[in-house]
Amino acid sequence: MADPAPQQPAELSKKALKKAAKEAEKQAKRAENKSKQAGVDFAEAYIPPVLTTAQFRRLRFGDAPLHMSQPELSSFRKLTDIDRPLTHLVGHKVWVRARIHTVRATGKSAFLMLRGKMAILQACCFVPGKSEGSAEKVDEYRAMIKYINSLPPESVVEVCGALSSVDAPIKTASAEHRDYELQLEKIYAISRAASQMPLQVDDAMRPDSVYQAPDSQYVRPGKDTKQDYRVIDLRTPTNQAIMRVRSAIAHEFRSFLDKAGFIEINTPKIVAGTSEGGAAVFNVNYFNTKACLAQSPQLYKQMCISSGFGRVYEVGPVFRAEHSHTHRHLCEFIGLDLEMEIYESYTEILVLLGDLMKHIFKAVEARCSKEMSIVRTQYDLTAPEPLVWADETVIVTFCDGIKMLQEAGYEASPLDDLSTENERALGKLIKEKYNTDFYILDKFPLNARPFYTMPDPHDGRYSNSYDMFIRGEEICSGAQRVHDPELLEKQCRERNVDPESLRSYIDAFRYGCAPHGGAGLGLERIVMLMLGIENCRQTCLFPRTQERLTP
Amino acid sequence: MADPAPQQPAELSKKALKKAAKEAEKQAKRAENKSKQAGVDFAEAYIPPVLTTAQFRRLRFGDAPLHMSQPELSSFRKLTDIDRPLTHLVGHKVWVRARIHTVRATGKSAFLMLRGKMAILQACCFVPGKSEGSAEKVDEYRAMIKYINSLPPESVVEVCGALSSVDAPIKTASAEHRDYELQLEKIYAISRAASQMPLQVDDAMRPDSVYQAPDSQYVRPGKDTKQDYRVIDLRTPTNQAIMRVRSAIAHEFRSFLDKAGFIEINTPKIVAGTSEGGAAVFNVNYFNTKACLAQSPQLYKQMCISSGFGRVYEVGPVFRAEHSHTHRHLCEFIGLDLEMEIYESYTEILVLLGDLMKHIFKAVEARCSKEMSIVRTQYDLTAPEPLVWADETVIVTFCDGIKMLQEAGYEASPLDDLSTENERALGKLIKEKYNTDFYILDKFPLNARPFYTMPDPHDGRYSNSYDMFIRGEEICSGAQRVHDPELLEKQCRERNVDPESLRSYIDAFRYGCAPHGGAGLGLERIVMLMLGIENCRQTCLFPRTQERLTP
Repeated sequence: MADPAPQQPAELSKKALKKAAKEAEKQAKRAENKSKQAGVDFAEAYIPPVLTTAQFRRLRFGDAPLHMSQPELSSFRKLTDIDRPLTHLVGHKVWVRARIHTVRATGKSAFLMLRGKMAILQACCFVPGKSEGSAEKVDEYRAMIKYINSLPPESVVEVCGALSSVDAPIKTASAEHRDYELQLEKIYAISRAASQMPLQVDDAMRPDSVYQAPDSQYVRPGKDTKQDYRVIDLRTPTNQAIMRVRSAIAHEFRSFLDKAGFIEINTPKIVAGTSEGGAAVFNVNYFNTKACLAQSPQLYKQMCISSGFGRVYEVGPVFRAEHSHTHRHLCEFIGLDLEMEIYESYTEILVLLGDLMKHIFKAVEARCSKEMSIVRTQYDLTAPEPLVWADETVIVTFCDGIKMLQEAGYEASPLDDLSTENERALGKLIKEKYNTDFYILDKFPLNARPFYTMPDPHDGRYSNSYDMFIRGEEICSGAQRVHDPELLEKQCRERNVDPESLRSYIDAFRYGCAPHGGAGLGLERIVMLMLGIENCRQTCLFPRTQERLTP
Repeated sequence: MADPAPQQPAELSKKALKKAAKEAEKQAKRAENKSKQAGVDFAEAYIPPVLTTAQFRRLRFGDAPLHMSQPELSSFRKLTDIDRPLTHLVGHKVWVRARIHTVRATGKSAFLMLRGKMAILQACCFVPGKSEGSAEKVDEYRAMIKYINSLPPESVVEVCGALSSVDAPIKTASAEHRDYELQLEKIYAISRAASQMPLQVDDAMRPDSVYQAPDSQYVRPGKDTKQDYRVIDLRTPTNQAIMRVRSAIAHEFRSFLDKAGFIEINTPKIVAGTSEGGAAVFNVNYFNTKACLAQSPQLYKQMCISSGFGRVYEVGPVFRAEHSHTHRHLCEFIGLDLEMEIYESYTEILVLLGDLMKHIFKAVEARCSKEMSIVRTQYDLTAPEPLVWADETVIVTFCDGIKMLQEAGYEASPLDDLSTENERALGKLIKEKYNTDFYILDKFPLNARPFYTMPDPHDGRYSNSYDMFIRGEEICSGAQRVHDPELLEKQCRERNVDPESLRSYIDAFRYGCAPHGGAGLGLERIVMLMLGIENCRQTCLFPRTQERLTP
């Protein structure tokens, strides 16, 4: 599934700025109209107060002095984390640091949506009625509303106020904050955002369905705008949630393997020669010597088995000069790699991998239920179905998979690799039969696998190798490896890989090496497929593709 | 401390091979002499038996067929992990997979030291006396001893035998295995090592003191031989221990920060431009565009703060085209990076860093006591002193540190960076005064720090920045960062860094960003200094330096 041709970032940036300028103009007009009917005059030129150290937190509002850790600014007030439910604090005064998500000043009142991490909380401010406050206080609140109106969205503010419950749930607040709002008493800009932002978080987080509605008044920000201003795009609660799920998956990968007796390794990323002898490498100038970036830790993690570490894993970057423009390719991604000695059979690895994935699914669903529900409800997606998996890992042999495809009318050969289309089709067939989105396909044809793959002991056309799939897409490749140097060299030559270019790797097996195997998983793909997201560029902080090297 | 000039690997490899050949000759002669007096004739040409699938585990010894996960070889026997104490199994029969560390066949008996991970276990085999077995059994055991004698060290074997206690502790066994030995009944080579190894593990693990003894009969393997054959060098119990301590440090770093509300991030390693505007970068050809490898996640981790993640950390490779040949420089190392929003002051980071390091010290000492004692007793070192640290983190200001140095007679200026010599001297002074190997030096001169460092609010010559030290060596640099785009651009220009080359980074602060700071730690240095090892090349699996790109 190819993405649309990329546009020039420069062009898009201008377009985005123009749009932002128009939006700002509209807002200003709206404010002007409203101010005519009310006490606060938004039309007059306004310069927000910039507070001195002495004024800060003594006055009710204003731009705080630049935070340089001035000792005299320490107040030892307790800031409340906006990303947690605050129900227990209703009726109490709280200090909150957050961003301004949106501002709506309407003459005698101002409504702000405050955002922090995945949460959005409503805050409000009213000019007191004559009975409620002195003329001085009325003036002060009027000025505060004027100040609030001057704050561009995305500014970081610190506010103080009482949390009070509301009668009707606030729909625009995040789920945990719908039953209360913050009644502003003080507000300080800690970091004022630019008044013209190239991307509005509100636009970036609107669900697809809103943009697709026939009478939609919104213009969807382009994918490249989002990527160009990824720093802003990442602020959406959905992206905050995705990155938290990502972090949790890596955590659970490690914690499962730690318990299973693995040790973490870090193998070099700058390597001599051509990585695994393959194409698609990035070349590096290493003190005027030719080097390249490792396409995987494959050779080194196997060398660690020869070094006697028994069971090893690595979480680290993997580099592929991919020309593919699909939803599942990146030029730099995080590989979750493992390698282990085997005793009786490589099926020991299959059992471990199945248990590992089920552990990740369960643990992440338990730890990240909030994150997953934010992604499910808010993301630019037609409701992705939650992941289902079988308690006992479903393992299907390649030949049986091909038979299932053939019986369902697909063209597939038992001795060629699966096409992407057939992978998807097989995923559907297996889901129908076993009710699982996750399964392992075992015993791939030898010629579809790399030179270091151990052949099947009884049928040399096949091999002790496997892929793992989620929702019909590959997330992992693995195999028992050849630990015999002679067979390894023979398989190198059969694939036109020069054994000399892999000398220290092949020699590692001449020094004695236990039988072993392993697997390499792609973190971005697992996040994408667990959450049911469309593109793995959305599951990566700052993606790298053939067209994109920035930000 | 510069290392000796590197020698040509090819030359050394020949030298090592020659030495190995001589050693093998000597061994053969020794065996021949002994065989003359005993039942087993080692002099005759010997071809070890290679077992068929049907013979394997039915016969008493022989080379196992290549392990291809043959279902018919499954025996479901339980292998016992050699890396754990086996006292509870004395009197029982066990199956063990291990390497042959050394073999000593003496006619009617054979003694093997079996090695696995950090452990060494003695195994032995005797030709039964006439009263003990049939003539057939005597022949069988004679043949087995002959087979054992043919096994090159480093071969991977599976053995079966009864564990029996011994009268006098076996000094050459590892600490946990000194009170028993394995009486061999079966032995199979799973992977036969080359008969001439370029490096003997026994040589690689001998303590310095043995080599330095005036009447030493041993020739110490060169540092380059060890690095050239790192796969073998890593097999020493000491290196196995070092890598386990390393893995534990990274684990504890993450686990402390996970609990402190951080999320793990992965920032891109291929970046546009010139990383932080500095020199010493590795250039990458990125689809015919100029790119380089990130010198640190600095800019991106700060952009993540602008993106609203609050507290982030990363464990990932860092690339520096270092021309320095010191014991503490590597061209590729693992950075332990963190970045966090601050509230009152950047001292919040100092407190967190102090607690983090103390947590790591304590947790690693508790988890890795065995590993640490192996390193302390076995390493090529004059007994490193165990690390000591103060319960309350010692924080000394830069100016006070300079005063301490000056009072002790060192030349030091309060406005220049510390020299490496002064760092060491200060470390000693602080240890004398506070009895701690770990401390933080705070408030460095601004001109000694990168452009993104926040100046001190009251004295522009200094800054809100700090280094952490262990045993007088820097393991970490950090600071509050400038989150104001105008000040940041000003500081860029003052250091001749073109702000245009950092556009998306600087703009991240125009979109609103909370005050923040962080730190970058070097994993290899922490391992080196915690364990008191001489060179950080010894704390890294496959080190990269200006001269070394392989293995």
